[in-house]
Amino acid sequence: GCGGEQTPPNQTAGALTDEQLRTAAQLRDEMLASNVAWEVVEDLTTEVGARMPGTPSDAKGVEWMEQRFRDLGFDKVTLEPVEYPLWERHHEMANVVAPFEQPLAITALGGSVGTNGVLVAPVVYFATIDDLQAAADEEVAGKIVFINKRMEKTIDGSGYGPVVAGRSGGAKVAGAKGAVAVLIRSVGTDSDRFAHTGMMRYDEDIPKIPAAALSNPDADQVERLLQRGALTVSIDISAGFTGTYTGHNVIAEVTGSRWPEEVIVIGGHLDSWDLGTGALDDGAGVAVTTAAAHRLLSEDARPGRTIRMVAFANEEQGLIGAYAYAAAHETEIAQHFLGSESDFGAGRVWRYDTNVSEALLPSFEQIFPILEPLGIERGGLESGGGPDIIPLQQLGIPVVRLSQDGTDYFDYHHTANDTLDKIDPEALNQNVAAWITLVYLASHIPAEGN
Amino acid sequence: GCGGEQTPPNQTAGALTDEQLRTAAQLRDEMLASNVAWEVVEDLTTEVGARMPGTPSDAKGVEWMEQRFRDLGFDKVTLEPVEYPLWERHHEMANVVAPFEQPLAITALGGSVGTNGVLVAPVVYFATIDDLQAAADEEVAGKIVFINKRMEKTIDGSGYGPVVAGRSGGAKVAGAKGAVAVLIRSVGTDSDRFAHTGMMRYDEDIPKIPAAALSNPDADQVERLLQRGALTVSIDISAGFTGTYTGHNVIAEVTGSRWPEEVIVIGGHLDSWDLGTGALDDGAGVAVTTAAAHRLLSEDARPGRTIRMVAFANEEQGLIGAYAYAAAHETEIAQHFLGSESDFGAGRVWRYDTNVSEALLPSFEQIFPILEPLGIERGGLESGGGPDIIPLQQLGIPVVRLSQDGTDYFDYHHTANDTLDKIDPEALNQNVAAWITLVYLASHIPAEGN
Ligand SMILES: [Zn+2]
Ligand SMILES: [Zn+2]
Ligand SMILES: [Zn+2]
Ligand SMILES: [Zn+2]
Repeated sequence: GCGGEQTPPNQTAGALTDEQLRTAAQLRDEMLASNVAWEVVEDLTTEVGARMPGTPSDAKGVEWMEQRFRDLGFDKVTLEPVEYPLWERHHEMANVVAPFEQPLAITALGGSVGTNGVLVAPVVYFATIDDLQAAADEEVAGKIVFINKRMEKTIDGSGYGPVVAGRSGGAKVAGAKGAVAVLIRSVGTDSDRFAHTGMMRYDEDIPKIPAAALSNPDADQVERLLQRGALTVSIDISAGFTGTYTGHNVIAEVTGSRWPEEVIVIGGHLDSWDLGTGALDDGAGVAVTTAAAHRLLSEDARPGRTIRMVAFANEEQGLIGAYAYAAAHETEIAQHFLGSESDFGAGRVWRYDTNVSEALLPSFEQIFPILEPLGIERGGLESGGGPDIIPLQQLGIPVVRLSQDGTDYFDYHHTANDTLDKIDPEALNQNVAAWITLVYLASHIPAEGN
Repeated sequence: GCGGEQTPPNQTAGALTDEQLRTAAQLRDEMLASNVAWEVVEDLTTEVGARMPGTPSDAKGVEWMEQRFRDLGFDKVTLEPVEYPLWERHHEMANVVAPFEQPLAITALGGSVGTNGVLVAPVVYFATIDDLQAAADEEVAGKIVFINKRMEKTIDGSGYGPVVAGRSGGAKVAGAKGAVAVLIRSVGTDSDRFAHTGMMRYDEDIPKIPAAALSNPDADQVERLLQRGALTVSIDISAGFTGTYTGHNVIAEVTGSRWPEEVIVIGGHLDSWDLGTGALDDGAGVAVTTAAAHRLLSEDARPGRTIRMVAFANEEQGLIGAYAYAAAHETEIAQHFLGSESDFGAGRVWRYDTNVSEALLPSFEQIFPILEPLGIERGGLESGGGPDIIPLQQLGIPVVRLSQDGTDYFDYHHTANDTLDKIDPEALNQNVAAWITLVYLASHIPAEGN
């Protein structure tokens, strides 16, 4: 300590009792040996598989999740509608046409238009989207733009943001300069021949050109081919928006024993991309938070506030379920005590980050020593709460984050390779242990008005 | 030493001179910094890509190899015809039809017939081909046989043999019992969603049923689905033999300075499967042996015997180029002093194995101390020489093997993921250093009659 504290931190500074802290520690240790999270993610990825928004599998996922919540005995299970534009992927192919004919492994980016048959054009190289932005129109017009920026591997996924700009915005910048298509190096840290999909956007006043990602080995190949001179590539993509779809947020509650009208929102997103089975993204997050919430149904572990477990619809295409949740619960926003999502794979929780009021902070500090034995560090005070918590955080709701080790997450993220075998059951349960600690204790923090 | 030797091993026991040993050590060290092998495998995989026997890329590969041998200044470059049945892959798809509809990642095995449209049938599980063999016909008839045996990861690839029996023979055993198709767990040690292809065989008197491999994650999925009850799968494969093709062994020589009529055969196979770019299998082997042979063209490194570098045709579908070579050179078999191939990826050489006459062994022992500084152990005396050396070894030709670390080889073997990025340039040059040591010294061993 730095001296000068007026009160020992574990007692009067916060307001959680020693008994509550002891119960949390017991629940934590117990959950390290639980099967619930594994069963949820195994069953979801086996019995449903991929769950791309708007597909028949998305609907099956909703049905499956509702049934599982009922089977697990939650106090209340509800479905809330979420409407969004339906994007469909039909097929995608690319080939080097000249000088060295060969196939290239690509995937259309989410939201991309198709090519209307086979498009053949020369390729023009850019190291980054900034280089593309700086290029003259005549360098780009009539060509396929290739953006080659590589993602760096880090524990916290900080390599994602700088590269994802090329994925989401490449078609806008290239389209404005007259390009006919954009190919990006996959936003991923692996060297496997899987292309990484993910969302991209158009501006209404700029021509919409098809956008796809090359696997990292194929991006290497294109780089080598361009070093050998002019390169012509063919692309054949059939994809596009075809209408409107109504999916659902699936919600399960554990009614609070002390302040049932106050809510802690936890969860993950139920949707995934179509290429893998959505095990890491985000079957794991749904499974971990479901398992923690489920344990709190028992009399010996009842939460103070209501725990609202949300399996969000359509996170992938723009947090659409999350915004729908915030809109549907607009009138009860003030009753939301806390929000936190698990959506960063299945790696161990390594850091506890918070973003709560000064008044509440001492209590949230009391939680840390119970998390610490799980190998968790204390992080910062300006945390986000996870993608689907953004709309709530924008409305002023306190958030925390149990930050996961994402070192390998972007090896698999948004690829066919996001499958159950990538989840380590021990790390998964370490997550459940951290979540039950957080959720149980946060639910019992006395706050102004309680 | 164990005492009792009559002669110091480096002099009279063998017959290589100190000067030859010193030259080999210099060449070895020099090749650790060479670019030739990397350039060969980079250019081959970039400018040709996959080289499946009988495809247009196979022909391009032959043309490319001949030109590269000429550009590298070999003393003699020749093409020798190799005729074989042409197998074509058109498409392959599989889906779980019931109870949980979803796609499965498969690849048709080499040699497989197609399904003639979409085949739909229940799946029956066997842990091994032996279990399948032991099963009653009525358990199997009308069903898709799934063989689930997993390959173990080892440095020497010893896990391959026990599992590959299911790949090569599964369709025969299943077909004889009335199965409609066979799906095997991929013969591979990875957990990536790539299916591993490879050759399979039919018997003429047994019904030919389609055979495909599931990626390891998809085999896990099928295993889990079967644990949940009856499983129906659809398979749609278009593939088959369509005629006869004439490819070529591409041969380059370094004429021997002392006994030019005697030959040391080295090389790798130029063909690959169609899924990747054949970087590890066997672009690396071709590159390493080409680089070593190329260095011996210089006056300061001239070999005693002729070094015959063979880029073999169609190894993958049954050592067809290798048997063609043996047949074409039948009359000069006695002039073959030694044979050795590099065909186990691009991992470091870790062991030196021999299979030579007792008379020659002391000289081959002299080579070992020059290899040892590369981190190479002395192996056994009953070595093979590599797949394409089998026909020569059957004719009694001495062989040696520079055994490579294959721990990761079967992560990529025969998949789309066999691409240049899997090669470590440093390990590649360690191979070249070992090869030049072996080849230079073996070429100078005096033998009976010299
Ligand atoms: Zn996610
Ligand atoms: Zn995602
Ligand atoms: Zn091979
Ligand atoms: Zn092979």
